[in-house]
Amino acid sequence: MTFTLSPGALAPGARIGILGGGQLGRMLALAAAGLGLRTHVFAPEADSPAFDVCAERTNAAYEDEDALAAFGASVDVVTYEFENVPARTAALLSDLCLVRPSPAALAACQDRLVEKEFLAGLGIPVAAYMRVDDAGAMARAVAQLGRPSILKTRRFGYDGKGQALVREGGDLAVIFRSLGGAPAILESVVPFSTEISVVAARGAPGAFVAYDVCENWHENHILKFTRAPARVAPETAAEAIELARAIADALDYVGVLTVEMFVVDPPRGSAGPQTLRVNEIAPRVHNSGHWTLGGAQTSQFEQHVRAIVGWPLGGALRQGAEVEMENLIGEEVFGFEQYLREPGSSLQLYGKAEARPGRKMGHVTRVAPAKPA
Amino acid sequence: MTFTLSPGALAPGARIGILGGGQLGRMLALAAAGLGLRTHVFAPEADSPAFDVCAERTNAAYEDEDALAAFGASVDVVTYEFENVPARTAALLSDLCLVRPSPAALAACQDRLVEKEFLAGLGIPVAAYMRVDDAGAMARAVAQLGRPSILKTRRFGYDGKGQALVREGGDLAVIFRSLGGAPAILESVVPFSTEISVVAARGAPGAFVAYDVCENWHENHILKFTRAPARVAPETAAEAIELARAIADALDYVGVLTVEMFVVDPPRGSAGPQTLRVNEIAPRVHNSGHWTLGGAQTSQFEQHVRAIVGWPLGGALRQGAEVEMENLIGEEVFGFEQYLREPGSSLQLYGKAEARPGRKMGHVTRVAPAKPA
Repeated sequence: MTFTLSPGALAPGARIGILGGGQLGRMLALAAAGLGLRTHVFAPEADSPAFDVCAERTNAAYEDEDALAAFGASVDVVTYEFENVPARTAALLSDLCLVRPSPAALAACQDRLVEKEFLAGLGIPVAAYMRVDDAGAMARAVAQLGRPSILKTRRFGYDGKGQALVREGGDLAVIFRSLGGAPAILESVVPFSTEISVVAARGAPGAFVAYDVCENWHENHILKFTRAPARVAPETAAEAIELARAIADALDYVGVLTVEMFVVDPPRGSAGPQTLRVNEIAPRVHNSGHWTLGGAQTSQFEQHVRAIVGWPLGGALRQGAEVEMENLIGEEVFGFEQYLREPGSSLQLYGKAEARPGRKMGHVTRVAPAKPA
Repeated sequence: MTFTLSPGALAPGARIGILGGGQLGRMLALAAAGLGLRTHVFAPEADSPAFDVCAERTNAAYEDEDALAAFGASVDVVTYEFENVPARTAALLSDLCLVRPSPAALAACQDRLVEKEFLAGLGIPVAAYMRVDDAGAMARAVAQLGRPSILKTRRFGYDGKGQALVREGGDLAVIFRSLGGAPAILESVVPFSTEISVVAARGAPGAFVAYDVCENWHENHILKFTRAPARVAPETAAEAIELARAIADALDYVGVLTVEMFVVDPPRGSAGPQTLRVNEIAPRVHNSGHWTLGGAQTSQFEQHVRAIVGWPLGGALRQGAEVEMENLIGEEVFGFEQYLREPGSSLQLYGKAEARPGRKMGHVTRVAPAKPA
């Protein structure tokens, strides 16, 4: 006798390779372990938090082809905790094992221009944008889109890094140079009322499961709070999930993906509906999905693991009337004991040695009990 | 700035040593990782499931004093997943680091005779028992306690191993020899209606938190199902928790402990209360507490970790109207996909390579939604 498996599914004991050793890789590895799967973490930083919870570890650069070859040969499927995996790394691993989500899905989300063109091609609403390769293009883009607008590098941006606001009176050449002159796009500023995300999973046979749409608050460009469900109109939430589904289907996506969107309210006095603009796609588990760990039937981490090994997706129902996730950033972690004392809260710490400013050190999830009927 | 800590508490990043590398050690290591703690697993079996989820591993015998010395020096606190840690191992580690629960608590639970005398000394009801060191003592004990009764080795029994039923007509010398002539006790058979456990935690400053009393069903002497809450009278449940608290206090216990008890109904037609007999104490997390992982605010694994590092204990409230845990034993694990498909269920697999008969391979936890008010 052996395991009864759906077509294409890996068996318990299968080996999952994870590119990236931060808190997302760590929580993916913990979820995989809960399902009896073995993990091999590949990361360039010697003190990667995910190294402490995996069966095998490789500490090497993403460009180290010998290390990648050995890594790819040691696992059944490779996934990643971040979208900036070099294209050549993903391609090289694809020759050795499954890579999920696919390198093509990764490529669509690595570059803001490619991503915007992909979304626009699907008819999905995005902020107005223009390509900015040099100071001349910058001047033309600002003339077209107006101010305020935002210059964003096409690649490697996160937590507000690689972005610059173009205000009235700002010197365009200075702003362009402030991002190192990297290839960029200029975007109009969307006058949004709420920033939301859809965290959803698509399984190998095309099954799609979305969590409740959640809303996000940032402090200093870093996510501070997420709340599920988002306080938006029910039709807006349903539309957001349909947009995420359309994106996942178009990418033939396998795994968890996160779509960040802006909610734009109708003009004051107008009875029109809220509208949505997709801001960006993260082809991975995401900080705005951390509330699902303890706050939903299946965490985003377990859901991603189920998807990439071809197992049935889990339930995504929210626990309780509402769930709040609070990031503990930098020195905020020093007060961790107070969170341990909150009834109904759960604390995750990421095992990082040093509480540097702006560094995500852990998070708290608060589940509010269901309201009495 | 640094961490704000209660007196005696270890800081995040502290190193926990775990003696034993089975599924209990594995789930303890996963819980510790969720709290930002590092684990070092010490186990004699090279293919120990817990080795796949820890920061450091030592594969050595419990009698290997050099390995123990290195292990003890590498961690801040040592705990264990099983009670049969040799006394010398515990003593040696105590000289190097904190050992929690204490070697004295361990000693009280390793030997059925010592355990019964400890319980009787606290005035806690247990089955009638007599010490059996040889065939002569066996005959005297059976003459005293009658049949049916159960012969149990004083040490190393689990899942029905090290036990023999003394029926009418059974040859006493043969039964005594069937357990290898090991030092034993004879116990009367308790005519119980339900077998229950109390899983509870005592923190370093004496705080005590118990989960709901749960009831257990065995198949072939192996736990198959646990259900929380146990279907016993409320006074019976309250008394069970008070007995567990008295035991934990008397042992000056730190960590999670489990007390198995028999519930004896009053004679038919009598209006008297149910009574309890304590069967045994496990100085550790326990299979009958697995339902707390996903079925209570804080799992028994996280609760144990919080206790041994001196952190506040977590909430123990049950999620939902009732929670059921089903062990997947041997080849039962081959149908794991069906459990992944059950809405509201969560599956844990232990990462064991071979599904041998009687081997615990994983478990399923089913949380029934709270009933509408």
